Amino acid sequence: MIKASIIGGTGYAGQELLRILYRHPEVEVVSVGSKSFVGQPLKDIYRNYNKITDAVCEASDIQELAEKSDVIFLALPHGIASKQVTPEILSQAKIIDLGADYRLKDVDIYEDWYGVEHHSADLLKEAVYGLCELHREDIKKARLLANPGCYTTCSILSLAPLLAGGWVDPASIIVDAKSGTTGAGRSSSTAFSYCEVNESIKAYKVASHRHTPEIEQELGLLGNTDLKLTFTPHLVPMNRGILALCYATLAKEATEEELRQVYRDFYKDEYFVRLTEDVMPETKWVKGSNYCDIGLTLDQRTNRVIVIGAIDNLMKGAAGQAVQNMNLMFGLDEKTGIDFITDFPV
Amino acid sequence: MIKASIIGGTGYAGQELLRILYRHPEVEVVSVGSKSFVGQPLKDIYRNYNKITDAVCEASDIQELAEKSDVIFLALPHGIASKQVTPEILSQAKIIDLGADYRLKDVDIYEDWYGVEHHSADLLKEAVYGLCELHREDIKKARLLANPGCYTTCSILSLAPLLAGGWVDPASIIVDAKSGTTGAGRSSSTAFSYCEVNESIKAYKVASHRHTPEIEQELGLLGNTDLKLTFTPHLVPMNRGILALCYATLAKEATEEELRQVYRDFYKDEYFVRLTEDVMPETKWVKGSNYCDIGLTLDQRTNRVIVIGAIDNLMKGAAGQAVQNMNLMFGLDEKTGIDFITDFPV
Amino acid sequence: MIKASIIGGTGYAGQELLRILYRHPEVEVVSVGSKSFVGQPLKDIYRNYNKITDAVCEASDIQELAEKSDVIFLALPHGIASKQVTPEILSQAKIIDLGADYRLKDVDIYEDWYGVEHHSADLLKEAVYGLCELHREDIKKARLLANPGCYTTCSILSLAPLLAGGWVDPASIIVDAKSGTTGAGRSSSTAFSYCEVNESIKAYKVASHRHTPEIEQELGLLGNTDLKLTFTPHLVPMNRGILALCYATLAKEATEEELRQVYRDFYKDEYFVRLTEDVMPETKWVKGSNYCDIGLTLDQRTNRVIVIGAIDNLMKGAAGQAVQNMNLMFGLDEKTGIDFITDFPV
Amino acid sequence: MIKASIIGGTGYAGQELLRILYRHPEVEVVSVGSKSFVGQPLKDIYRNYNKITDAVCEASDIQELAEKSDVIFLALPHGIASKQVTPEILSQAKIIDLGADYRLKDVDIYEDWYGVEHHSADLLKEAVYGLCELHREDIKKARLLANPGCYTTCSILSLAPLLAGGWVDPASIIVDAKSGTTGAGRSSSTAFSYCEVNESIKAYKVASHRHTPEIEQELGLLGNTDLKLTFTPHLVPMNRGILALCYATLAKEATEEELRQVYRDFYKDEYFVRLTEDVMPETKWVKGSNYCDIGLTLDQRTNRVIVIGAIDNLMKGAAGQAVQNMNLMFGLDEKTGIDFITDFPV
Repeated sequence: MIKASIIGGTGYAGQELLRILYRHPEVEVVSVGSKSFVGQPLKDIYRNYNKITDAVCEASDIQELAEKSDVIFLALPHGIASKQVTPEILSQAKIIDLGADYRLKDVDIYEDWYGVEHHSADLLKEAVYGLCELHREDIKKARLLANPGCYTTCSILSLAPLLAGGWVDPASIIVDAKSGTTGAGRSSSTAFSYCEVNESIKAYKVASHRHTPEIEQELGLLGNTDLKLTFTPHLVPMNRGILALCYATLAKEATEEELRQVYRDFYKDEYFVRLTEDVMPETKWVKGSNYCDIGLTLDQRTNRVIVIGAIDNLMKGAAGQAVQNMNLMFGLDEKTGIDFITDFPV
Repeated sequence: MIKASIIGGTGYAGQELLRILYRHPEVEVVSVGSKSFVGQPLKDIYRNYNKITDAVCEASDIQELAEKSDVIFLALPHGIASKQVTPEILSQAKIIDLGADYRLKDVDIYEDWYGVEHHSADLLKEAVYGLCELHREDIKKARLLANPGCYTTCSILSLAPLLAGGWVDPASIIVDAKSGTTGAGRSSSTAFSYCEVNESIKAYKVASHRHTPEIEQELGLLGNTDLKLTFTPHLVPMNRGILALCYATLAKEATEEELRQVYRDFYKDEYFVRLTEDVMPETKWVKGSNYCDIGLTLDQRTNRVIVIGAIDNLMKGAAGQAVQNMNLMFGLDEKTGIDFITDFPV
Repeated sequence: MIKASIIGGTGYAGQELLRILYRHPEVEVVSVGSKSFVGQPLKDIYRNYNKITDAVCEASDIQELAEKSDVIFLALPHGIASKQVTPEILSQAKIIDLGADYRLKDVDIYEDWYGVEHHSADLLKEAVYGLCELHREDIKKARLLANPGCYTTCSILSLAPLLAGGWVDPASIIVDAKSGTTGAGRSSSTAFSYCEVNESIKAYKVASHRHTPEIEQELGLLGNTDLKLTFTPHLVPMNRGILALCYATLAKEATEEELRQVYRDFYKDEYFVRLTEDVMPETKWVKGSNYCDIGLTLDQRTNRVIVIGAIDNLMKGAAGQAVQNMNLMFGLDEKTGIDFITDFPV
Repeated sequence: MIKASIIGGTGYAGQELLRILYRHPEVEVVSVGSKSFVGQPLKDIYRNYNKITDAVCEASDIQELAEKSDVIFLALPHGIASKQVTPEILSQAKIIDLGADYRLKDVDIYEDWYGVEHHSADLLKEAVYGLCELHREDIKKARLLANPGCYTTCSILSLAPLLAGGWVDPASIIVDAKSGTTGAGRSSSTAFSYCEVNESIKAYKVASHRHTPEIEQELGLLGNTDLKLTFTPHLVPMNRGILALCYATLAKEATEEELRQVYRDFYKDEYFVRLTEDVMPETKWVKGSNYCDIGLTLDQRTNRVIVIGAIDNLMKGAAGQAVQNMNLMFGLDEKTGIDFITDFPV
């Protein structure tokens, strides 16, 4: 059994992670950390854990946890993980960071977009970007894993085959993404209160969201080019799900069917990527699962390809992918414990 | 492996049942029946089945299915099952009927409330009412199982300890129940279209809903009395969940704590019943799980006990309970394949 | 033109009131008070006021306001109004209090249920309970008006004809009420965040909600009796609307049609009460309007009458009724400026 | 008083139109037409009309209506209006068509995108495209008015100043638009049932929606160029509102502030256009009103301007704009009867 601890277990992503881990056949949860709820039973915070576990939230000491855990999951605000992870820790336990601190390879870009100092920039080289479909072999050997962001997972998987094959002009990319409200975390802000979110849609952080450089980094690697793209996130009145509309201008001639074949080839061995053919992805079909659904259309009138990706932001966009990464890091079948069928309508 | 077939697999309850069965460790699905979608792959109707199964919907012949199945689940409109089930069928396969045809022991009450003739009234005596917490031993031996209705499951479990112990006046019972919209089935009626249901609440079939006599039958058995109660269902703008507010006047003196102890004793061995102590049940904590959460308050000013029950109408109220029954009927641990933790927020 | 000021103008009820007053043909808004937003333009807090008004929120001094206003609306947490209103204020301006401080005639009951001291109990005798349909003549002469609570308005209007006519047993009354989330006010509590409220229903303050004694006071007056009832409020995942299910046992024989006629007679001159005949009220049909829709059924099996009332909690349950009261207090047609048709679907 | 008739009064747009007309100070409704509900009182179909009107739905004969009406509103599926309107009709009554039949000036484009024959193509030259902010003077003189589509109104108003000033490359335009579910009309399709729409987002008719040529026609006129753009609509789980994200590459150098000034100048006299400065538009702030809110950002990293427009699809996107047009056509102040403040939260 893999001994797993989690620091930051009572946010939405942490809670989703616990739900998976408590039913994972190869995992034993040894510590649930939560700064805000130290001493309180998890089941008093999230009533769905009634009769599931009597675990009590702890003030996590990463050093102590490293001694008794095989893997530590971090689900923390940015800037905190980079203070806690050290080579010593990594020599004792594997780290899977659901936050942003180890995702960007260039520390200047990190500090520029996040506005905080990075406290362990020397570890960035070792950290592996945990998008399983792109970096599986590196992930298997990783000690420090940077779990990708939710928008980024969906955007990169949607566009990867086009960049890898040089099919589109890198300067033409626009990603217009929509997220459910769990993406904002468990909030006590009036802005995220029921009556303010319900029955409305808005864009936010237009052209300034922090997932932008993360998408650029990975698509740039695939396309072997520096690129800048426009990224716009939206808040949608629903709990879960991300839908990413990706627009790019063709760089060489192609039919829609040729492009579809590019995707089929690129993802032919990927369990958690599903290509839709006759219909476009909708977030309801991936909710609660670890799938990324992808569909595309060629707009011949404008020579643009439009790719649509859909994920569950807390699953493939956070906790599900974290466990997929853990599975790989510990030599398990990558779908162990996360092979859920979407529950509908839920 | 239990060979399972389903007739009526593309309604919401049927679909939920399939989701469970396709991941159940002891079940093999041998046939998915759907009158409306004969010849169509399940995954084209419900896109969440993409990459899960290539099953194609069939026009079900119950005789044929009985020969190749150990159990047949029926998820049909009322009046149809009673035409299909025969002693011959029952000699070949077990039947779990998610519909209403075999729930009421008194055929006159059935025909009166449902307005249709019952075609196999002689089987009513054999049929077992599949509320596991009340009839577990009979269920283990059943060949024909009547899976309870959603409102009824929640209402009966909420009130059972009070009736069994003679704590309340049977003539005083009022159940004010609220349901998510999946309770109406997969509908193409304008009345259930998004814009008509969203942002509104209404009561419907006030004092005339068909689940009334079912609740009366089971509570009457427990209280060893004939009783009539008032039952009011509501449509709530959410997908899933039932919340039942049960009001009854005390028949003998009791403190709130004594009443709580009555419930603890009554349900002490029940895995799928959870008693809440300091808070009242909310549907979000049971969604996607097979739990029934129950809480109570004594209104000392009026001498009324108020019991609140919460279930997921498609799980404990339909498909989850059907599998719980199947597990018992086939000698399995009753929680096999349905021991889900509620996913939150979903 | 009536010069109107408002203290507490940036809560949901205050904001709704402003929306009405800024379009009321006989009103000029002279001051918008908001402790939380002093110095900020209303239109920066509520963007719907962009281009409507440049009013800036003020720290209200009730003495100053009394000098320049004909009427002052108070939309404040309980316990604050009773400190501010004095006979001197009342000699200068009429007061319409949307809060609870002047609703209960018995100061002990107030202090018991609200847990705070009442600072101007001597004014309780003068204060008029502003349920127009019951106290119209007193309202016309009132200087200090206590605007009823949302649940109470709906519950009292639903049950009034039965109590006035002695049709039901006063000891048998149960009100099971459901409210949209605006009823909780503009909140920054996690409990009212989008993801926590969405897709779930719960009861709260079961048998202990502060609107209980208010309903009992008014129904007791109508029935000329002391009465205690059971009142249960629920939180529903929608923005607006209250649906009250009222149960009571008949005290004398009556047919459903006779009871309907009782309601027709009782409300025959009431513009803002609408009786439904063939269907039951739904909150969507009253949203944004000042109507109270009422329907009833006689459950002959149990001898109970079930009355259903529906209002918009911010309109007839708060701001709309406050303006209806103001109209009466200033000799205007009571529907002036609030005669809205429900917008659907909204 | 303007005598107004409506053909197609029981769809969502028709119903919204009636709500406005029944409170419009200069209008008398003389006929409510509805093919589906002939002989039924409007208040039995939409219960919000209870006590508002006793109007009964009629099978409309446009010739008869022309004789007794000053204006006839058509709210019909495409292809029907073009069969009914004739020069004779236009000589008797003004026509405001909320449908698509007279919006496109080029009959070939109409027949190509709509797949039906146009039966009165000779009237296309006379028909005025009723986007008040662009064609006010023509509207004042119009007999046949083509009321713009919902997506188109929002998209064109958002981009008009950029095209008119030659600020962007016409070939670079992408509009990613999101709509509430009322945009689909009053539907009895399973695809628009509550449980299928709720808690999910999807794009539809990607690169093939019929509003595309309408946007191209008007932006082409403004930019004095033929242009083709990419337009993607989405279905959002909310009742009302359109949010249009418009992306375009700058054709000449500009700062964000310069672009804002372009918008201020362009819309300086427009009552129903509101520019947001420090925040971006959200649909909740325009719901129930006739406003179009517009905000913009310059993404300097990619040289793209991002303009966001928000409207209520049934108001400025349909019924509100229709009445704005009627007001202009009859010499009234254009905001008469439609000067609503957004009700919040509703």
